[in-house]
Amino acid sequence: MSDLAVKCAENLEKIRTNKPLIHNITNFVVMNYTANILLAAGASPVMAHAENEVEEMVGFAGSLVLNIGTLTDTWVDAMLKAGRKASKLGTPIVLDPVGSGATRLRTDSAKKIIAETNVTIVRGNASEILSLHNEESKSKGVDSLHSVDEAEGSAMILARELGATLAITGPIDFITDGERIIRVANGHALMPVVTGTGCSATAIIGAFSAVDPDPVTATATALAFFGLAGEKAGQNVEGPGSFMTALLDALYQITAYDIKTGCRISQG
Amino acid sequence: MSDLAVKCAENLEKIRTNKPLIHNITNFVVMNYTANILLAAGASPVMAHAENEVEEMVGFAGSLVLNIGTLTDTWVDAMLKAGRKASKLGTPIVLDPVGSGATRLRTDSAKKIIAETNVTIVRGNASEILSLHNEESKSKGVDSLHSVDEAEGSAMILARELGATLAITGPIDFITDGERIIRVANGHALMPVVTGTGCSATAIIGAFSAVDPDPVTATATALAFFGLAGEKAGQNVEGPGSFMTALLDALYQITAYDIKTGCRISQG
Amino acid sequence: MSDLAVKCAENLEKIRTNKPLIHNITNFVVMNYTANILLAAGASPVMAHAENEVEEMVGFAGSLVLNIGTLTDTWVDAMLKAGRKASKLGTPIVLDPVGSGATRLRTDSAKKIIAETNVTIVRGNASEILSLHNEESKSKGVDSLHSVDEAEGSAMILARELGATLAITGPIDFITDGERIIRVANGHALMPVVTGTGCSATAIIGAFSAVDPDPVTATATALAFFGLAGEKAGQNVEGPGSFMTALLDALYQITAYDIKTGCRISQG
Repeated sequence: MSDLAVKCAENLEKIRTNKPLIHNITNFVVMNYTANILLAAGASPVMAHAENEVEEMVGFAGSLVLNIGTLTDTWVDAMLKAGRKASKLGTPIVLDPVGSGATRLRTDSAKKIIAETNVTIVRGNASEILSLHNEESKSKGVDSLHSVDEAEGSAMILARELGATLAITGPIDFITDGERIIRVANGHALMPVVTGTGCSATAIIGAFSAVDPDPVTATATALAFFGLAGEKAGQNVEGPGSFMTALLDALYQITAYDIKTGCRISQG
Repeated sequence: MSDLAVKCAENLEKIRTNKPLIHNITNFVVMNYTANILLAAGASPVMAHAENEVEEMVGFAGSLVLNIGTLTDTWVDAMLKAGRKASKLGTPIVLDPVGSGATRLRTDSAKKIIAETNVTIVRGNASEILSLHNEESKSKGVDSLHSVDEAEGSAMILARELGATLAITGPIDFITDGERIIRVANGHALMPVVTGTGCSATAIIGAFSAVDPDPVTATATALAFFGLAGEKAGQNVEGPGSFMTALLDALYQITAYDIKTGCRISQG
Repeated sequence: MSDLAVKCAENLEKIRTNKPLIHNITNFVVMNYTANILLAAGASPVMAHAENEVEEMVGFAGSLVLNIGTLTDTWVDAMLKAGRKASKLGTPIVLDPVGSGATRLRTDSAKKIIAETNVTIVRGNASEILSLHNEESKSKGVDSLHSVDEAEGSAMILARELGATLAITGPIDFITDGERIIRVANGHALMPVVTGTGCSATAIIGAFSAVDPDPVTATATALAFFGLAGEKAGQNVEGPGSFMTALLDALYQITAYDIKTGCRISQG
């Protein structure tokens, strides 16, 4: 049993006890599922995107989750406003640059959020992370056309440049702050067949970062917990529909014992 | 078997037979689930929020459901326009002041809708109802930090002031028009672990108010039916995911016999 | 085993192998479910509606799906922009005129999209299709008040006028390009009890049209596949909630053998 597995169980216990408010400005596709994912894990989600509300709302939040999945300029403005306020308050900001690299609007918006707010953690697939490092990256809509391996170097450099934690998710997740490296091997093959699994992972990182001040361990333990719930969910399902349902059940049911015996987190 | 249980079964029968059109201007998080909740109960939901469409759409509707869960000024303008038209037509308006008390935008918008339209029924949690009565109320995002008991007095006063029916939902729901008081004890512990359960309850009230001209009995029987479906759904589930699914099934399956034997509605 | 059943199995195999990107500009109610429907079938969905993004996004897509279910003028503008670009590129456009006939905004918007872009396929219920042919049609919100039969003549004329394929869905679907006629008898009684089943059918047509250059066979085989998944899903469910889940599973699991033995497609 690794120290990080113990940390994961502790973080989950804190979420279930304190029910931190997670302020999400996210995309239309996943709003319902993300809110249910956070509730199932024990957190208290709120979705609020009005420019004349976000500063007040983020003031109560344990973390701010920004997701550009169905962005428009107005929504990005709201994200910037909430992000600047969170930066001032020292509230963790988790960014999901959905589809960055696929269109200029997405790449530019992700970079703008990073430039103008103190983003604490960025989680994306390999293509999205590569696109933020000004490299030629290819993506197909919101799906990656690169492997996690290909983006590790960029993630290391970017993490140092931004003073942020970067997470590339895939079959084995890679987490770094530019110095420390953690890999998480939990997950299930049906996860990419459900829309918004990446967005859900980002929301769970939001919940963990609200209770764990170290963004690297918050991110790694969140991804291990989420991946483990996916494994548990995948045990008796018929396809992506029953998997979606079982994933919410698993996030709700998972015990400290499950985590301590099931987490596959390795350092370095 | 109480008179109200009989009334509940009658109202449900009317919904299943007449399939009233329920016009919802609601939040992004719950649009899909709310529509499915209404369909499962037998009603015909439509979601329409364009300012140049809402007046025409509400003209066909049996009731109008206004929900400020992910509001912006533009959406509130559409709610006001639809609400004024419904008021003119005498179509019941059901308001869900999601998060009122949490931010100024939400409190002000809820009050504006109440001031400028003939709201028939308001359903909220204790914090939301308290916030409408100009009291100091606390909420955490969209979750209540007050018990139903604490808000009963405010609900009574507010109901009289507005000439409306007020419903505070919680472990035991409280419904009043300022004179009559009804309490509903149906429900299940997993309901708050699914996002939009309150919004769904409001939508079901919309359906019942389309077939029952007495807003007090419409609200109470709607909440009993919805709570009973929750109880039925909770019998064989593993967590919030399977509960969501089972709740839709239960709303669809529930019989007059289930209602007459299961409703826990009491007056006074 | 008909030629069209074989074609259906071939089209599905191509979708699962090539995972075509389907660009959806669709309504808030069904965004999540539609994305999951497309993923379960093997396609790669993307939802993007920003006016400064849609032209770039549609450039990568195998087809464009336009759905006016919760339209506003801004969204229609984005649909027109994406549609004009798709027309220029020769990318198939599938239109779902949700609620056309119910309000002037919806009828006008559907007609505008048809007038200003090269719509390849239109799928709607009988009321929606009738409304596009300038006839007096009645609808109740987004539900049809006409039978498929009543709209067949209008669909034939409209198909010829527009040079497009028209599909009227109902208990037996009717597909025509104004010359050829195909009927599909697959489906399940619970489909209309789930919101967005029609929208999902349209999205599946989008996926099939990305791999089959003949819009008539693409539409007919898509509807047969979708209806067959509905039949499979309906075998062991308790109501609309478990049906929704089972439908995603069925789309994912269905085999070429299922299709060849289960498709009920007839010509003429």
